[in-house]
Amino acid sequence: MKILTYDSTLRDGEQCEGITLSLEDKLRIVERLDALGVDFIEGGFPASNPKDIAFFQRVQTLPLRHARIAAFGSTCKKGVAAEEDQGLADLVASGAPVVTIVGKTWDAQVTRALQTTLEENLRMIRDSVAFLKHCGLQVVFDAEHYFDGYAANAAYALACVRAASEAGADSVDLCETNGGALPFQVEEVVRATAAAVPGQQLGIHCHNDSGCAVANALAAVRAGAVQVQGTVNGFGERVGNTDLLTVIADLELKMGMTCVGKDNLRQLTSVAQFVAESCNMALPSHHPYTGASAFAHKGGLHASAIARFPEAYEHASPESVGNNARMLVSELAGKASLMAKARGLGIDLTLHLDKVQDILDDIKQREASGYSYEVADGSLALLLQRHLGAYRPHFTLESFRVIVDDHEDTGALAKDAMSEATIKIHVGDQRFVATGEGAGPVGALDNALRMAIVAFYPQVADMELVDYKVRILDENVGTDAITRVVVTTSDGSGSWGTVGVSENIIEASWNAIVDSIEYGLMKMGE
Amino acid sequence: MKILTYDSTLRDGEQCEGITLSLEDKLRIVERLDALGVDFIEGGFPASNPKDIAFFQRVQTLPLRHARIAAFGSTCKKGVAAEEDQGLADLVASGAPVVTIVGKTWDAQVTRALQTTLEENLRMIRDSVAFLKHCGLQVVFDAEHYFDGYAANAAYALACVRAASEAGADSVDLCETNGGALPFQVEEVVRATAAAVPGQQLGIHCHNDSGCAVANALAAVRAGAVQVQGTVNGFGERVGNTDLLTVIADLELKMGMTCVGKDNLRQLTSVAQFVAESCNMALPSHHPYTGASAFAHKGGLHASAIARFPEAYEHASPESVGNNARMLVSELAGKASLMAKARGLGIDLTLHLDKVQDILDDIKQREASGYSYEVADGSLALLLQRHLGAYRPHFTLESFRVIVDDHEDTGALAKDAMSEATIKIHVGDQRFVATGEGAGPVGALDNALRMAIVAFYPQVADMELVDYKVRILDENVGTDAITRVVVTTSDGSGSWGTVGVSENIIEASWNAIVDSIEYGLMKMGE
Repeated sequence: MKILTYDSTLRDGEQCEGITLSLEDKLRIVERLDALGVDFIEGGFPASNPKDIAFFQRVQTLPLRHARIAAFGSTCKKGVAAEEDQGLADLVASGAPVVTIVGKTWDAQVTRALQTTLEENLRMIRDSVAFLKHCGLQVVFDAEHYFDGYAANAAYALACVRAASEAGADSVDLCETNGGALPFQVEEVVRATAAAVPGQQLGIHCHNDSGCAVANALAAVRAGAVQVQGTVNGFGERVGNTDLLTVIADLELKMGMTCVGKDNLRQLTSVAQFVAESCNMALPSHHPYTGASAFAHKGGLHASAIARFPEAYEHASPESVGNNARMLVSELAGKASLMAKARGLGIDLTLHLDKVQDILDDIKQREASGYSYEVADGSLALLLQRHLGAYRPHFTLESFRVIVDDHEDTGALAKDAMSEATIKIHVGDQRFVATGEGAGPVGALDNALRMAIVAFYPQVADMELVDYKVRILDENVGTDAITRVVVTTSDGSGSWGTVGVSENIIEASWNAIVDSIEYGLMKMGE
Repeated sequence: MKILTYDSTLRDGEQCEGITLSLEDKLRIVERLDALGVDFIEGGFPASNPKDIAFFQRVQTLPLRHARIAAFGSTCKKGVAAEEDQGLADLVASGAPVVTIVGKTWDAQVTRALQTTLEENLRMIRDSVAFLKHCGLQVVFDAEHYFDGYAANAAYALACVRAASEAGADSVDLCETNGGALPFQVEEVVRATAAAVPGQQLGIHCHNDSGCAVANALAAVRAGAVQVQGTVNGFGERVGNTDLLTVIADLELKMGMTCVGKDNLRQLTSVAQFVAESCNMALPSHHPYTGASAFAHKGGLHASAIARFPEAYEHASPESVGNNARMLVSELAGKASLMAKARGLGIDLTLHLDKVQDILDDIKQREASGYSYEVADGSLALLLQRHLGAYRPHFTLESFRVIVDDHEDTGALAKDAMSEATIKIHVGDQRFVATGEGAGPVGALDNALRMAIVAFYPQVADMELVDYKVRILDENVGTDAITRVVVTTSDGSGSWGTVGVSENIIEASWNAIVDSIEYGLMKMGE
């Protein structure tokens, strides 16, 4: 049986403390979720801010294979006709083929929070859904606080669902907004609701406040829901949403359902990692299915026992979700996947089969020391070229020095810091010394490097550093922690990521910048 | 109805990658769990290592009020009489009043992994339990792989449970060892088992590999289990065990059961933090019930809605588990929520109503320029104090200079970067110059600042920078982007976050570090 998957990472996930996604991040996440085979991707609130408006324009230019994009908003305001409601008009104007509107279903919330009558709320639901259907859109009705509402006044909660259903909602998704429900409660309410609106497609949207978001979604599916909402890695407000990837794995591997299909399921781990990196949130190593430790076995007794009876120590095959039974998580875990990845970078490793194991060992060693190649294709390509003896550096560093000066002028907030970087560099047999300035030390270094080599490599003028991310690894050790820097560089026609790692944030940045320029020059030279 | 709680943090929890507990850590954790009202505390394997042997000696000297200590081991070896088994003798010698022994219940595991007969395995269970009961001990039988075993050969799995039961086991705890089961499966098997051994106390032990460990434990309780095993924060091998504290909260607050009682329940958050601290593992901010964000509210609309209808936004009372409803300052909608937040920081703004609007305007302006106070209570407290005229800096900066030198020695990877920071600072009417070194520039600055002021403020020696996070804002502009640095500092008894923002990552770090020290000194001075 097919269960529809509805991802809300870009909307509800972004409510998570600490997550702010750029427009480019959002578009890249859409591409990955589409490739994974997710059915619906909720992009944001087109009525609320310019970034989301720009997203809905840009996303229309992506060549998506499968996923449909949903815009999120609310029913019309009380006392306003759906046709005249600005929020609904913004949703229609977004160009998204799917519109999801949230409406109230808990009687007390209607009267106390919304401060209108129960009848008017039903009118708002009915008219809003009907209006959007009249506009030719696919409509999901998100029944807010449905489970609290059902407990307080089941007849009214059901009346809300019927209003949306009769107005033509393609799916009515029951929202466990407070996150406090338990699986047996969810199952009972979904079952009763399914019986009350036969033929209506139902979905489920949960939060993890009781620690049961995944189980609640599974319980809803058992009771008849056929659409599951969630976010990648469960990112979301408070304790987070249903972890969509874990639900997909449970449904496919343990309940015999189909979400994205067994082949695509192998992308789960890399999607989890990619989205975590994009959000600049660590994926916990103990995350189900996709965490680095999810299939890690401790040594000693277990290792030999596993050899004798592997089923006794793995609840599922790590390969089935693209993870592996080792400590190390990477999409490059095996030879086949490394060769596929290399092919994507234009490097044919079938001509160098004798070197593949060395390359894998090198990658594993580097990942253990903090590198991550998930979003650093440029650095990976350079690493492959080095192993194949095909790498010729365009320049070599003799030394750099960065000075940051900060003088407190008058009061507590009147400050001015200035950075200066001097680099000494060799291009062929010539030596160059250049000094660059910048607001910060990394910008100063970047400027100095470009000044030093632009005469030899005028192409660097076309390369622009467009994204700079810093991740502190092993944060418990404070400022002595390992720093991973990932930069994204664009030459106008494409962009590439590179990575640098060091205990010193300046050196990590330098390594990433050097790779970004080297890869750009290599790419342009081809 | 009373549900017994059985904590395995010190045994199964310590299997978690990265966790190593000292003997003192273990004893302190025992005291906290005892005070919380946990019924059983599993201390370790007395047969396996000297630290655990010492633990079982020392723990007998603790004046525990309620909890009973359990020693963990296995049934006797195949072909060995229980009376002559060294492992069982070590368990008895540990002096623990409770002994938990694990035994196999999956037929294929008996024949393939243990490599003995099904009959001999039943003999091992029966004789081991009977021997320990004969020694006057309370005995828990852990039925390993019970759910896989039941699926493969229900009759044999039940025979194992009956063998333990008939030999006098006080509790037979069914172990979902692989962690792959789902709640409806657990519920069905526990129900069938309870029917097969009427009168026998059953318990449940789960792992989180399917993301359902909490829900599985709750399902088992619904089916008749009256003892729940788990670990604090779910710490454990692979993806971890059942989070005992979340299960306790769900059972008490949502299922009407009694575990530790409503009064003790208020200790949950502090126990979760204490154990995380002892294990040197961060408690995720999104952890159910006990995480810092578990009751955090965001969103302008929400703040006013919460005031009107709080039940709609909290699935449980944060006070019931000793947590706080945290208002995320970034989305402060108005005066009321700022005043609530200030109250949480010990600052009463009702005495300064005329200044509240100015403070809000200042926060809004700072947030627009990149500050975020969501996780920076320390910086927010200082900002409030500045507005109230109550802020007196403990030191003022004249200037700092940071130098990072990097020399390429021979090849591409032979590098050595060194950082040095010199700061000139005033404390009262005295001027100090200090130079610090570090692997990176921020560590060097932090060292220099501490060296400069430690003579005046010896308390800084007790403050430790425990977390350092960097976020690049507006990433489209590359290295010129605004950098936000958030550091967390601990003084052993508590921790606080502070924030710094600048185009220059060094300056942003400096600002965050200065706030961290200033807030710490202010806090200690009170």
